[in-house]
Amino acid sequence: MIRYLTAGESHGVGYTLIIDGFPAGFKIDFNHLQSFLNKRQNFFGRSTRSCWEENLFRILSGVSEGVTTGAPLSFFIENNSKSQKKPFKDHLKTPRPGHADLAGMLKFDHKNVELVWERASGRETVVRTLCGALSLQFLKEFEIDSLSHVTNIGGVKTPPSKNTFSSLKNALSSSNLLCSDSEIEELMKEKIKSAEKEKTSLGGIFELRMTHLPIGLGSYTQWDQKLDALIAHDLMSIQGIKGVQFGIGFLYGETPGHQAHDEIISTTQRKTNNAGGIEGGMTNGEEIIVSCTVKPPATLLKPLSSIDVDTQEKTKAFVSRSDVCFVPSAAVVGEAVLGIQILNAFLKKFGGDSLSQTKKHYETYCKQIK
Amino acid sequence: MIRYLTAGESHGVGYTLIIDGFPAGFKIDFNHLQSFLNKRQNFFGRSTRSCWEENLFRILSGVSEGVTTGAPLSFFIENNSKSQKKPFKDHLKTPRPGHADLAGMLKFDHKNVELVWERASGRETVVRTLCGALSLQFLKEFEIDSLSHVTNIGGVKTPPSKNTFSSLKNALSSSNLLCSDSEIEELMKEKIKSAEKEKTSLGGIFELRMTHLPIGLGSYTQWDQKLDALIAHDLMSIQGIKGVQFGIGFLYGETPGHQAHDEIISTTQRKTNNAGGIEGGMTNGEEIIVSCTVKPPATLLKPLSSIDVDTQEKTKAFVSRSDVCFVPSAAVVGEAVLGIQILNAFLKKFGGDSLSQTKKHYETYCKQIK
Amino acid sequence: MIRYLTAGESHGVGYTLIIDGFPAGFKIDFNHLQSFLNKRQNFFGRSTRSCWEENLFRILSGVSEGVTTGAPLSFFIENNSKSQKKPFKDHLKTPRPGHADLAGMLKFDHKNVELVWERASGRETVVRTLCGALSLQFLKEFEIDSLSHVTNIGGVKTPPSKNTFSSLKNALSSSNLLCSDSEIEELMKEKIKSAEKEKTSLGGIFELRMTHLPIGLGSYTQWDQKLDALIAHDLMSIQGIKGVQFGIGFLYGETPGHQAHDEIISTTQRKTNNAGGIEGGMTNGEEIIVSCTVKPPATLLKPLSSIDVDTQEKTKAFVSRSDVCFVPSAAVVGEAVLGIQILNAFLKKFGGDSLSQTKKHYETYCKQIK
Amino acid sequence: MIRYLTAGESHGVGYTLIIDGFPAGFKIDFNHLQSFLNKRQNFFGRSTRSCWEENLFRILSGVSEGVTTGAPLSFFIENNSKSQKKPFKDHLKTPRPGHADLAGMLKFDHKNVELVWERASGRETVVRTLCGALSLQFLKEFEIDSLSHVTNIGGVKTPPSKNTFSSLKNALSSSNLLCSDSEIEELMKEKIKSAEKEKTSLGGIFELRMTHLPIGLGSYTQWDQKLDALIAHDLMSIQGIKGVQFGIGFLYGETPGHQAHDEIISTTQRKTNNAGGIEGGMTNGEEIIVSCTVKPPATLLKPLSSIDVDTQEKTKAFVSRSDVCFVPSAAVVGEAVLGIQILNAFLKKFGGDSLSQTKKHYETYCKQIK
Repeated sequence: MIRYLTAGESHGVGYTLIIDGFPAGFKIDFNHLQSFLNKRQNFFGRSTRSCWEENLFRILSGVSEGVTTGAPLSFFIENNSKSQKKPFKDHLKTPRPGHADLAGMLKFDHKNVELVWERASGRETVVRTLCGALSLQFLKEFEIDSLSHVTNIGGVKTPPSKNTFSSLKNALSSSNLLCSDSEIEELMKEKIKSAEKEKTSLGGIFELRMTHLPIGLGSYTQWDQKLDALIAHDLMSIQGIKGVQFGIGFLYGETPGHQAHDEIISTTQRKTNNAGGIEGGMTNGEEIIVSCTVKPPATLLKPLSSIDVDTQEKTKAFVSRSDVCFVPSAAVVGEAVLGIQILNAFLKKFGGDSLSQTKKHYETYCKQIK
Repeated sequence: MIRYLTAGESHGVGYTLIIDGFPAGFKIDFNHLQSFLNKRQNFFGRSTRSCWEENLFRILSGVSEGVTTGAPLSFFIENNSKSQKKPFKDHLKTPRPGHADLAGMLKFDHKNVELVWERASGRETVVRTLCGALSLQFLKEFEIDSLSHVTNIGGVKTPPSKNTFSSLKNALSSSNLLCSDSEIEELMKEKIKSAEKEKTSLGGIFELRMTHLPIGLGSYTQWDQKLDALIAHDLMSIQGIKGVQFGIGFLYGETPGHQAHDEIISTTQRKTNNAGGIEGGMTNGEEIIVSCTVKPPATLLKPLSSIDVDTQEKTKAFVSRSDVCFVPSAAVVGEAVLGIQILNAFLKKFGGDSLSQTKKHYETYCKQIK
Repeated sequence: MIRYLTAGESHGVGYTLIIDGFPAGFKIDFNHLQSFLNKRQNFFGRSTRSCWEENLFRILSGVSEGVTTGAPLSFFIENNSKSQKKPFKDHLKTPRPGHADLAGMLKFDHKNVELVWERASGRETVVRTLCGALSLQFLKEFEIDSLSHVTNIGGVKTPPSKNTFSSLKNALSSSNLLCSDSEIEELMKEKIKSAEKEKTSLGGIFELRMTHLPIGLGSYTQWDQKLDALIAHDLMSIQGIKGVQFGIGFLYGETPGHQAHDEIISTTQRKTNNAGGIEGGMTNGEEIIVSCTVKPPATLLKPLSSIDVDTQEKTKAFVSRSDVCFVPSAAVVGEAVLGIQILNAFLKKFGGDSLSQTKKHYETYCKQIK
Repeated sequence: MIRYLTAGESHGVGYTLIIDGFPAGFKIDFNHLQSFLNKRQNFFGRSTRSCWEENLFRILSGVSEGVTTGAPLSFFIENNSKSQKKPFKDHLKTPRPGHADLAGMLKFDHKNVELVWERASGRETVVRTLCGALSLQFLKEFEIDSLSHVTNIGGVKTPPSKNTFSSLKNALSSSNLLCSDSEIEELMKEKIKSAEKEKTSLGGIFELRMTHLPIGLGSYTQWDQKLDALIAHDLMSIQGIKGVQFGIGFLYGETPGHQAHDEIISTTQRKTNNAGGIEGGMTNGEEIIVSCTVKPPATLLKPLSSIDVDTQEKTKAFVSRSDVCFVPSAAVVGEAVLGIQILNAFLKKFGGDSLSQTKKHYETYCKQIK
């Protein structure tokens, strides 16, 4: 099983990641890791920092000639020197609504906001994304593939997708908002531009898909082992995520049973996939489909009402450089953390200390269920 | 910190629960526990089993004269003798769409469906509810209160609530669908009756609220410590839940930042509560508001297409007694498991091996943040 | 992976055990479980309770026709009605040296000793033994075998054993002190009898052995994954254990390197086994040999000095029925908990949700390392 | 609660440490950390690497102006450039008896020994020591103090100590073998010199002491929460440790009950401390006294018999630079990891997100038990 911890602050020296339990004998494709990280970065609507910050990672342990050894992997991503210059001279006392600022100050006895936001920042997801990209690489050895795409920005929505996994993946390749529909994408960009003008920010919704999963990852046998619960935890832990749903999600509320459930055609095939690939806390062989809602960034150029925590007087929240919209970035992070949880479920079921061992175990199961 | 495990099967001898880590010195109100369990049981739309099954629990350890000792608590709820008679003579081979049946059989090499559904059954939540009811009792010592209510059954919805916590709680007292609006409730009942006639089933949505929480439960400092993530895990682990959202949830997708975030009036007061009481993975002092979507029961009297797992031939899924709708029950379970997670967050922050110790610790914090 | 929690008190209604994560498809030999429990019970030197207490267990969940289903197993062992009568009328205020009594009262704000000792009692090991006996049964499917024997009671010691595993096992079959040397056993009994006369108690040392283990259980890669550390934890957690050592243990202190280490003859064979089968936190294919020291029972008929916790006045500790010596029982418990940890290490390495899956995975590894 | 993971290899770029859960508001004394690390390093009998390796650490996150923020702490210790040159040109195929080499190769499918020993190396303890030194610093805020000393090297032993904590600490200040008796120390050095000449290595025994602990850390209520079990795990996880005992440890085997147990004089005072400060899995207010046996280093200049793993032919184990004896270093590491576990037990009992909160909670307990 994978365990991982992250450390680092938004304007500190950088971010550290330790991944424990990754199987041995896996040749890492470092170019793919870097391009996955870059993918998280450069979307329309992100702040200027995403332009100058390169997110070059350095691997510090756990490999020999690019192949994992079973030892813990560790990575360091240095913050750009420009980022390391903290943007504020005076300590900030005016917490932002929608952010960890105020609760964090009280919780830890902090006297200013920076001591909170430095760690609460969404920039921390850069190393989680790295961990997830690596997990997804490993899963590729078992032909498991994934994608993420944006279905709603500020109310501009794509119609419910009837695309197959591969056609959807193709449709995304040219988008810089991770939107599968180029016309809608233009509208989304307009929406973002006008939000920028109005000094506000936008949230949205993204969807993740993962395909070619073996049946029976996760378990119904104990409350905390359900795969959908574990995935929901990990997605909800991403900065800005406020809701998670599988398959048709909240539409289950208005869909009667005979239309809601996915009829069984064969052991490995269903007529529909309303459940989003998970029944009883386990993969059922269909694609995992899970979508998340992302709140708008909390830092606004036209700031909201706040207080000065020292004086308790009413004032405005502090202002800083910020994204107008980070939904596509959150989607990439989501895809990454989904990968980590699926790898974990995979290793729980199949065991193995090296890629070749895990593969052999996996193959005996494939034979069994055929 | 609380740890708990459940065991038991739907038509076995009963359900067992062990709760480890509950503080000493707390006088349990057993009548309240029983009435909380009963509340889960007897809603409109539940199957006949919910009528004859009494859910009388027996406490097996962890108390002396009704007061917790710090030792693990254990409970046993015997299944009614009627329930212990398994309803089927022959082993079932035709898994139901929407249930753990098929994936469970493959995962565990099971040759029939009962070996899966016996454990996957929603009846397991009876002991989780017990654990949660106890947690909520403990939290009452700190004036933390909670409620659950149903906002949608099969598409029949209550309007967005503007009720205060206490007026909402009052409105619920007379409902047997946990619906705060008596007119809507009638429509919901009609909906259920007609679904029953059509031999289908209904899902819905419920909302949980918890009030008077201290600021700073949960943490933003490590990815897996965010309180909203932990709550999402626990709610999504309830049988039938397919989506979880905090505050305005998926509406964040279409609400711009200046309208979305909750302006700060004072350290302990906000203008709105769109965030549902959690910012940066911590309680912010507002009510926790979280809602969940529940899928319709998977067992249908007019069964869906399935296969015979032995012959792979097409057939219909098996049929058994089942609920038409269990949304209100799921809501009660949800309230209970929310209680467990909040108690955990509470004990993480305040420590203490006995109620009186935890109280003293809590009071020093209350002084600090004032 | 196995998780388990125990609950119950020495003079309560009984002990409850939940085991989560046990693979499906394993036919439990209930007679063996019962005889393993009985083995723990009836040794020379135990108190009268061990005669009247039958330790009949009841399985409450997790099996169908005696075969595990993958669902959590739960067991209940009722305390004899004689035991359920608490032996004391007045609340005890005079804690015993050597027991949890005093620290437990302060920790949990308890006003009398019973609230502590009821849970701290060594009787709790009855359900851990059950859990371990089941684990050992499962390991037998992989030809892994174990034994426990007593090497020292109150200073009466067996000479260092040169027995093979099987000859040692034979030598133990007729002993009722788990001693392999019948002459020494007689001396041990004399020692116990005279201790009884002197109203004191005796500790000792036992040794555990486990054979036919695959190489590579446990791991050196992260500090908390070393198998010897995990085993040491579990053994030290047994009531009364004060020391744990592998192989020659504390004699490593005086054995130079060229004599201490076990020369390699082939991949699966060593010249000696000073290390007790574990190198670098992993099994090395040799027998696991681990020994533990057990302190004398803390309840003495000629009681030691204590205080009255209410008045702080000097007095004697309270007196109750107690064992003179429970070293052989502790040995049986030790063998059981060793079984649990090894099963865990096994499942971590090989995965699998059913016995047949785990077996197939195991076989691929056996082929690999040959 | 503290969680920590380490990463890094003996001849890699360096070692990384992430510590999660450390309370906020604690001013780190970096000089003390460095001197604690240095203390681990420079003992008589260590190899030349301990001379050239400086173990300068860099803190990467979790502090602001030297004060902890509640965010995860991360540290990096770069390996000296001399160390980063791997000392061997050809891949090693001849595993050493007494080391992780052989089992590690089989476990992870490794084709050479370096892929194992790089991570299994005792050098990993450098970052655990850092984590422990920080924990001990924090505990100093509560007047908890600790020491480690060597009582046996290769059979040269100090007599059982009757020193008080402070006189023992004084006696150690001038030793470069952590031995409290200067005459014995000279004999130990002679022993080490002659072992070096004979190209062998030496093990030994060390003892740890910790003082001024509150009563009631750890718990008897669940098998895995006993403090002695948790400490035994952590100590046994240190490279080279083969045995752990509390107080008089294996002498309990020959000490009858009336002499073994520590009579109670007052709530906070005992006549003796044979138990080593832990009864029933909890601190009892006396000093924690725990001792460990350390095996001799496995790398010998006159190598032991081994095989070539490729050809299975008999040969000698490979030879490299190594320590003759690292018992004092292991003692320092032991003191450090004891500190981590005690800090954890402390935070479990007292909670608090900042030093000042934890202190307030602690003080309420001190009042209670008085």
